[in-house]
Amino acid sequence: MMSSASGSLSVISGDNQTWDLAVAAIIQAGHRMDDRGWVPATAGNLSIRLADGRIAITRSGGHKGFLTSDGVIEVGLNGEARHEGDRPSAETLLHCQIYEHFPNAGAVLHGHSVAATVLSMVIKEPALYLEDYEVLKVFEDQTTHETRLSVPVFANDQNIARLSRSVALYLDEMKAGYIIRGHGVYIWGPDMTTALTRLEGLEFLLTCELERLKLLPAIPARDVM
Amino acid sequence: MMSSASGSLSVISGDNQTWDLAVAAIIQAGHRMDDRGWVPATAGNLSIRLADGRIAITRSGGHKGFLTSDGVIEVGLNGEARHEGDRPSAETLLHCQIYEHFPNAGAVLHGHSVAATVLSMVIKEPALYLEDYEVLKVFEDQTTHETRLSVPVFANDQNIARLSRSVALYLDEMKAGYIIRGHGVYIWGPDMTTALTRLEGLEFLLTCELERLKLLPAIPARDVM
Amino acid sequence: MMSSASGSLSVISGDNQTWDLAVAAIIQAGHRMDDRGWVPATAGNLSIRLADGRIAITRSGGHKGFLTSDGVIEVGLNGEARHEGDRPSAETLLHCQIYEHFPNAGAVLHGHSVAATVLSMVIKEPALYLEDYEVLKVFEDQTTHETRLSVPVFANDQNIARLSRSVALYLDEMKAGYIIRGHGVYIWGPDMTTALTRLEGLEFLLTCELERLKLLPAIPARDVM
Amino acid sequence: MMSSASGSLSVISGDNQTWDLAVAAIIQAGHRMDDRGWVPATAGNLSIRLADGRIAITRSGGHKGFLTSDGVIEVGLNGEARHEGDRPSAETLLHCQIYEHFPNAGAVLHGHSVAATVLSMVIKEPALYLEDYEVLKVFEDQTTHETRLSVPVFANDQNIARLSRSVALYLDEMKAGYIIRGHGVYIWGPDMTTALTRLEGLEFLLTCELERLKLLPAIPARDVM
Repeated sequence: MMSSASGSLSVISGDNQTWDLAVAAIIQAGHRMDDRGWVPATAGNLSIRLADGRIAITRSGGHKGFLTSDGVIEVGLNGEARHEGDRPSAETLLHCQIYEHFPNAGAVLHGHSVAATVLSMVIKEPALYLEDYEVLKVFEDQTTHETRLSVPVFANDQNIARLSRSVALYLDEMKAGYIIRGHGVYIWGPDMTTALTRLEGLEFLLTCELERLKLLPAIPARDVM
Repeated sequence: MMSSASGSLSVISGDNQTWDLAVAAIIQAGHRMDDRGWVPATAGNLSIRLADGRIAITRSGGHKGFLTSDGVIEVGLNGEARHEGDRPSAETLLHCQIYEHFPNAGAVLHGHSVAATVLSMVIKEPALYLEDYEVLKVFEDQTTHETRLSVPVFANDQNIARLSRSVALYLDEMKAGYIIRGHGVYIWGPDMTTALTRLEGLEFLLTCELERLKLLPAIPARDVM
Repeated sequence: MMSSASGSLSVISGDNQTWDLAVAAIIQAGHRMDDRGWVPATAGNLSIRLADGRIAITRSGGHKGFLTSDGVIEVGLNGEARHEGDRPSAETLLHCQIYEHFPNAGAVLHGHSVAATVLSMVIKEPALYLEDYEVLKVFEDQTTHETRLSVPVFANDQNIARLSRSVALYLDEMKAGYIIRGHGVYIWGPDMTTALTRLEGLEFLLTCELERLKLLPAIPARDVM
Repeated sequence: MMSSASGSLSVISGDNQTWDLAVAAIIQAGHRMDDRGWVPATAGNLSIRLADGRIAITRSGGHKGFLTSDGVIEVGLNGEARHEGDRPSAETLLHCQIYEHFPNAGAVLHGHSVAATVLSMVIKEPALYLEDYEVLKVFEDQTTHETRLSVPVFANDQNIARLSRSVALYLDEMKAGYIIRGHGVYIWGPDMTTALTRLEGLEFLLTCELERLKLLPAIPARDVM
């Protein structure tokens, strides 16, 4: 049932009924994210909400490009592990926040690219503004390039509960996820295929933005480092 | 009959008589374009005109790096789907325009790279001018590096019919395809192998141009963003 | 027993008892490093200390992305080959220095990336300072991004014994390995999985630092070349 | 006998006696060069001189990343095809020049990377000077990083015979091959493994040089484009 290595994404739909299919989808998405350099070291995390409400999420500490079924655990909407001994990542709360706020959300992805990390550490505005790109049409409700999408940037915080309260204020406006400074992006969709597609679109745009920034007059040193 | 994953391009010739061969060629080209980062999210599209005149083109919305035979539909020269329920991409018209204008065209590729996107959003001229590169010899009629090829850049437009009328004015001069600002490149050839080769040559040159631009004095901010 | 090409890292744990498992882990790590461009030409080296104290290390001269079991030899803590005719790399001493100084060390990796090479040749300070990155948490004892890690940079020296004496002075403070100017990074961990993870984290951060440097006002020519 | 896709380089030794082994080595080297982006479109060429003096070289026009045995033909030291109907690339003369000048040469590689193309079009000196890099030790006779190697840069010329006369003047001094402006690198070795290793080393260094150039004050526009 698993697709071939270069595979199609058809198997990783979020309306899968069984745990095994959800785990397979997460493993495959992890490979894809690792191919692109979006889960360096043990960074990043991936989750799916099954039709019956169970949440499958990557456990703390493993490399997300090399997942096995042991690397995926079940948590409740409160972020707590459903089985004794399972240790969820602290960032689980950010996944659960999406599932709670958006009844429609079926998959959440947290990636950690060079572009997202560098851009978020360089800009001083509270958000990245993306406009005139055709790829903007991959995000929810977008039908034209003649638009401006805002991707909020939040300061990193080891107190995830506190961080999630900042995120909560802006969730309704987010069309292309959000970024945590020096820490990466969060993006979601009704199923894994859509979430991965939106992540790919966002990372493509962040890479374009970083390249364009390199062509601008230099940013003063105090703003970059 | 399909080549191996790392395969040769010998099977994806445009003079294939059967639908299945054309679909296989499109799927393989999609993999290649995805490997190179030229079909991010659901961007890009690929088509082949069979010897009997049928046009096989990627349907709207799917990821072009993970195509299956379901992802390829038949359209007429007017861009309309031949089978009930098939939904072609709006950009189908741009493929059909090439087939109509060039009796010799057997495959059309629309890719969406970072280099093409960034360069087209940065330059103010109506075209990119490529000269002195040995790789220029991969385009039609080119036998030397001592030449200057023009790649026209058109403003993006959600009204594809209107966009195609702008494109029409310059088609005869195009030797290395064209670019839609913030949206990617269109390039073609007598068969898929040639079209892919020309796309690869064009993307290589665009990457070189972007790298050279980074070594120039900075472009004023109002021109870049 | 070997994992698949896109495999999980679960087999390359440092507490392997047998030589064959250690060799397999080294070969697999070499593939991963080669995929990422960290062992160009014949550069780089990889080692594991087995539970029984034997040290398996890549021999001199071969390409570390294409290792076979012949490419891995046994050395003692003094860096000398255990079997007649085996030729260890001169850099073996730097691996053995780690094993001697850190009783806990189970694997040492020397990678040779563009980012490490360029950064080390450009900066004038005696170390790279990494702060505010979430990925800093992948290194030993790090639990927050709100920290500053120092990665010492040593001048290259063909006299490895002399080089190791400079390194010795700073070993206790190193949390993210060290860099040899124009020559690459050294990093380690209790097992191969951890060492590879830390290498990946370090290379990610070095790439971010290089990208940020490109956004700064230009460095005077005398400092760069 | 062929190595696996991610394979070891052990099969592509230049002392192979048979034509089939030489062809297999060329095909495998072509895959490796294509993976790295060094044979875009139909650019680049690869050759091996067998122990019996026969020269196997890639024919004109095909994509060097997707070679089959049909894509490799036999030529004589004068560059002419040994079999009726075979069409060698014009650049065959440059391969034969190496084999004539260096009795020891067993393989010649012509690659076409972004770094080589951009650097050669940007610099005004007649050569690239590489110093202080540890990777310099991969070239013939080099035992230290404390050296400066010169890689001559020749103007491109569609008259290959004329170009080869310029090259001839400097062949004896070349330790790391040479570059043709806007056209790529030529490098060689006693066998394919060594030639590929040296090509990889050279491309690594060219990439480092390009990255360092990006950190310098901007080059005046008239010198870059």
